[in-house]
Amino acid sequence: MHRMTVLLGHGSGGKLSAELMRDVFLPAFSNPILGRLEDQAIVEVNGTRLAFTTDTFVVKPLFFRGGDIGSLAVHGTINDLAMGGARPLFLSTAFVLEEGLEIDTLRRIAQSLAAAATSAGVTIVTGDTKVVEKGSGDQLFINTTGIGLAPEGLNLSAGHARPGDAVILSGPIGDHGIAILSQREGLEFECPISSDSAPLHTLVEAMLAISSEIRCLRDPTRGGVSSTLNEIAAQSRVSIQIEEKAIPVREEVRGACELLGLDPLYVANEGKLVAIAAPSAADTIVAAMRAHPLGREARVIGRVNDGHPGLVTLRTVFGSTRIVDMLAGDQLPRIC
Amino acid sequence: MHRMTVLLGHGSGGKLSAELMRDVFLPAFSNPILGRLEDQAIVEVNGTRLAFTTDTFVVKPLFFRGGDIGSLAVHGTINDLAMGGARPLFLSTAFVLEEGLEIDTLRRIAQSLAAAATSAGVTIVTGDTKVVEKGSGDQLFINTTGIGLAPEGLNLSAGHARPGDAVILSGPIGDHGIAILSQREGLEFECPISSDSAPLHTLVEAMLAISSEIRCLRDPTRGGVSSTLNEIAAQSRVSIQIEEKAIPVREEVRGACELLGLDPLYVANEGKLVAIAAPSAADTIVAAMRAHPLGREARVIGRVNDGHPGLVTLRTVFGSTRIVDMLAGDQLPRIC
Repeated sequence: MHRMTVLLGHGSGGKLSAELMRDVFLPAFSNPILGRLEDQAIVEVNGTRLAFTTDTFVVKPLFFRGGDIGSLAVHGTINDLAMGGARPLFLSTAFVLEEGLEIDTLRRIAQSLAAAATSAGVTIVTGDTKVVEKGSGDQLFINTTGIGLAPEGLNLSAGHARPGDAVILSGPIGDHGIAILSQREGLEFECPISSDSAPLHTLVEAMLAISSEIRCLRDPTRGGVSSTLNEIAAQSRVSIQIEEKAIPVREEVRGACELLGLDPLYVANEGKLVAIAAPSAADTIVAAMRAHPLGREARVIGRVNDGHPGLVTLRTVFGSTRIVDMLAGDQLPRIC
Repeated sequence: MHRMTVLLGHGSGGKLSAELMRDVFLPAFSNPILGRLEDQAIVEVNGTRLAFTTDTFVVKPLFFRGGDIGSLAVHGTINDLAMGGARPLFLSTAFVLEEGLEIDTLRRIAQSLAAAATSAGVTIVTGDTKVVEKGSGDQLFINTTGIGLAPEGLNLSAGHARPGDAVILSGPIGDHGIAILSQREGLEFECPISSDSAPLHTLVEAMLAISSEIRCLRDPTRGGVSSTLNEIAAQSRVSIQIEEKAIPVREEVRGACELLGLDPLYVANEGKLVAIAAPSAADTIVAAMRAHPLGREARVIGRVNDGHPGLVTLRTVFGSTRIVDMLAGDQLPRIC
């Protein structure tokens, strides 16, 4: 790697993150399970297929419209399990606290985290707390690691997209990133934007119950929908074309993005998913999603194509086509 | 809780840590599995008993004599699984990087972490990386979370000590804490002290293979042997008496402790364990431990007694007896 120090962009979920993975972590840790590069590992213990995933949350500010670092830490890890088709069961939580943090702030976050877990039906079974000196952290960071039960025979993967497949999106994009960013920048909108932070496992359950033709599920968090689609296109060695007019973006989010010079395709979501499915099953899957509160605006937003492996393109509302690359810089640090 | 902000001592593994657990985390997360307060949760998935444990490492400095934050992050989590009698299988690793960290430092640590995992026979199957701005972290923190296979019918617990039981210690204490502290303070000794950081799962395996009379296993990390024994005495509602002359402490560690005004009983270890076992089995267990490279200096250091539930006392080399309380302050921050 030609860059000598860690940059904020190394945590963006985009190109630099991929570079760090390729140049530092994969060579060190190389093994077939990690090498799958999915949001979760699927491991077998005593004949039981487990999903296993970890995520540290460093979101700033700690409290935001629509959630806080505690609820986000639960939803984020549940979603990484759910994207493997697994039923989330148990979470661990590990806190790094900065000396001087208000105990009441910690208590509120712990309670929110617990409430999010209870409401999603997962149990927090083990934990850890570390304290660092003032100035060596930033209030608090939370790691949540989750275990889920992965159904027999199900093998969702970003490497399974095939030409002709439909690209399905569960709802409007960019809410989480814009909620965080507008709060951080002190922007005020007529209709304030809330994070979409939500646990997606019951939506996934409904989708898997109705169709066995789902090839891949991903939640477009850091790096947004564009980075997710780029990963799928690269790992499946296919190209993907999406239709701008099919992609739902709330008016307020679109406005904020224009104001901030952001492309909603690169903005983080915490309660949305992208599914790749056989074309014949797409309508059935979308119908099942729309019957779920978290998928009411689900729709097909594009197609998987042959040729140009790794390429993602957008057909704009004006009919022109442009390349949608991976996030290159550090558009939105500490969004999750 | 009467204290309003987080203090360094809340991360010490002593009284303040217990207070935070009791006043903030347990009321929020309360459930029977977490309430066990063991180093690991034992959960059942599809009839398979899994051990599950999490730990974030914030040790400073990152590299120390006898290890680094990478190897420590592997050993610490393996040991928490092993103390439940479980066979460690899979680890997740989650990095929080501070902007500006040298990539080469990260690479060395990733390689050390990977080497420690390989040598202990565990596989790193999933991970996460976040980056925070310069000044919002301290180089890097690592969370490792582990899954192990817990044998059927084995139920080790700090609540299982009974009057008459033997207290067994696997070897000399205080090495890790003194190695870190002397390096941090720039102290030089004739015989430099190395951390005892090591994976204890094969030692535990040997112990469990030879005896079914082990009630409890604990690794005395933060807060040292004194805090571990206090936890066992409190949870089992017994008292414990240990013999000062029976407790192995290296000459160099004893000297450093005198110099620094520390009691070795409160200093952290990362490659030692305390076992509580039926008195009739103690000799057999100690013999099995001595046959293992990590238990060569194992010995019985005390007894569990009736009465005075929660009290730990030390009979000194002079024949007097003193109370050994839990660690009260923040003797050694960021030791692990």
